[in-house]
Amino acid sequence: MKARAVALKSRPVGMPKTDDFEIIEIDAPAPQDGEIQVKNVCMSVDPYMRGRMYDRKSYVPPFQIGEVLTGGCIGQVTASSHPDFKEGDHVSSSWGWREAFTASTEGIERLGDIAAAPSQYIGAIGMPGMTAYVGLLEVGALKDGETVFVSGAAGAVGSIVGQIAKLKGCTVIGSAGSDDKAQLLKDELGFDYAFNYNDGGIVGHLKEAAPAGIDVYFDNVGAEHLQAAIMCMRPNGRIPLCGAIATYNDTEARPGPNNLSMAIGLGLTLRGFIVSNFMHMAPQFRADMEKWVASGAVTTKETVYQGVEQAPDAFIGLFTGANTGKMIVNF
Amino acid sequence: MKARAVALKSRPVGMPKTDDFEIIEIDAPAPQDGEIQVKNVCMSVDPYMRGRMYDRKSYVPPFQIGEVLTGGCIGQVTASSHPDFKEGDHVSSSWGWREAFTASTEGIERLGDIAAAPSQYIGAIGMPGMTAYVGLLEVGALKDGETVFVSGAAGAVGSIVGQIAKLKGCTVIGSAGSDDKAQLLKDELGFDYAFNYNDGGIVGHLKEAAPAGIDVYFDNVGAEHLQAAIMCMRPNGRIPLCGAIATYNDTEARPGPNNLSMAIGLGLTLRGFIVSNFMHMAPQFRADMEKWVASGAVTTKETVYQGVEQAPDAFIGLFTGANTGKMIVNF
Repeated sequence: MKARAVALKSRPVGMPKTDDFEIIEIDAPAPQDGEIQVKNVCMSVDPYMRGRMYDRKSYVPPFQIGEVLTGGCIGQVTASSHPDFKEGDHVSSSWGWREAFTASTEGIERLGDIAAAPSQYIGAIGMPGMTAYVGLLEVGALKDGETVFVSGAAGAVGSIVGQIAKLKGCTVIGSAGSDDKAQLLKDELGFDYAFNYNDGGIVGHLKEAAPAGIDVYFDNVGAEHLQAAIMCMRPNGRIPLCGAIATYNDTEARPGPNNLSMAIGLGLTLRGFIVSNFMHMAPQFRADMEKWVASGAVTTKETVYQGVEQAPDAFIGLFTGANTGKMIVNF
Repeated sequence: MKARAVALKSRPVGMPKTDDFEIIEIDAPAPQDGEIQVKNVCMSVDPYMRGRMYDRKSYVPPFQIGEVLTGGCIGQVTASSHPDFKEGDHVSSSWGWREAFTASTEGIERLGDIAAAPSQYIGAIGMPGMTAYVGLLEVGALKDGETVFVSGAAGAVGSIVGQIAKLKGCTVIGSAGSDDKAQLLKDELGFDYAFNYNDGGIVGHLKEAAPAGIDVYFDNVGAEHLQAAIMCMRPNGRIPLCGAIATYNDTEARPGPNNLSMAIGLGLTLRGFIVSNFMHMAPQFRADMEKWVASGAVTTKETVYQGVEQAPDAFIGLFTGANTGKMIVNF
């Protein structure tokens, strides 16, 4: 089977451009012993992928020029030479950025009976949702009824963070990149307070929303957001460091928060994490989140691009605020 | 009883000056019911006191102009109207910066039988030692055999951090402000590697000393030290934030580490703390540390100034590197 795929043409400098990517044709041949052939139905674009476009050591190896990119996707088995997989099975893999692939089953997860649309398994019930769940409950050690601030709150992770916090009886504050998104957080996702950070005055918003201070700040954005949050934390506050999307396209290292020493007197904990180090929590997460999504306790938002050739624009859109909720590329 | 004391004359701007302090005479009258009269034998100067000289909200209230400063000291009861205290008892209190005082016994600790010189109870067996103990073992969650880096390693806290880490079988790296101090860390305190940070190249030293990376960085200094340490941490590393002496005299907020987002991929934990939130560990600490000091397992260094009138210079000396080990003012 021939398939289209997206290869990295050049390493982006600053904001990625469509020209940094190219659409190529690849082959997904009939599976050999132990292999499966899969037709993808949707793929994920995620901010962390920007880091892999730099040629540097990190927690995931860099993408290579001329090679097809990888990332989360959901597909259906079209042919199988592996006893545990049969045609029609839904599988979750990191063979994204391509319409189809043939591979050994290593690292490929059979989803079994799926309780929601396939795209949810790269969204709320997938890596972004689990990032929210682990980061808030385990890394952030959330206690019922606390005051939570999440940045990038209209994004794939942030929108789930806020809703889990509401399920735990918390007061929830969110920042987003437009008035419309801030409105949506309040009207549709149950946030107690939301604001457009492009209007500035993050500290002012936080002081108004949480005059007694913030217990948990879930950081998706970094930079000014982190400094403002530190300024408004309560004693023994926790700051799960999940991402720093504001800085991912920086061409020079940006100075950190100038008030980090406030962490001493306040006894703050800043803890970075990547979800793949918490896979022991996956079964509990999936059970909870499938239930919450099915019952409507968690509302999921998606922004959908159509066709693998749109994947670069979908990815770039993560940094321009093109997405509300999870950014999905459907095939 | 008349006594000399040190009052704050003006709030220091930048590096404190002798002129910011004045020596005044105070009275320590015969004790009323429930009070004791105490003649101090030594007092502590500590970097955290610099923060109290600013007029700002913090975890301890600011010092007031014209008032006698306070801080850790050891004294002996000279007259008592309290049934639990008798003449000659050694007491630990925060009535420092004065030769004598009369006060209710609230917040005053009877030391009971003391197993070391009184000055040890404002040093290794006192607040600085407990800061090292709590910060390394509890906040830093040190595991036997790990690689530890401590900055300000020749200071009151740092010198104890390094030695506790050695007792736990760790590889220990220290930075200090002079070649002589670095030499002392290796020759007398058992550090595996020590360097003079004024020579620059902190990252280079850390890479040489710990090619496989650092598990725990105990931060007394902040600024360049923190940024360099983050660059060299191992996955799941921990950074107890104890102090930031490099920044205490800054007149403008200084940017933080420009590589804080490395904490995400590495799963680093940065946790600020103040020792007074860990008083439940005091009995265990005192038992351990009295034993370690008595047996010589922990070597204590002191720099001693004589007379209350020298207290301002002793304090200022903390920021110029005048002390090796604990800075003490004897009376």
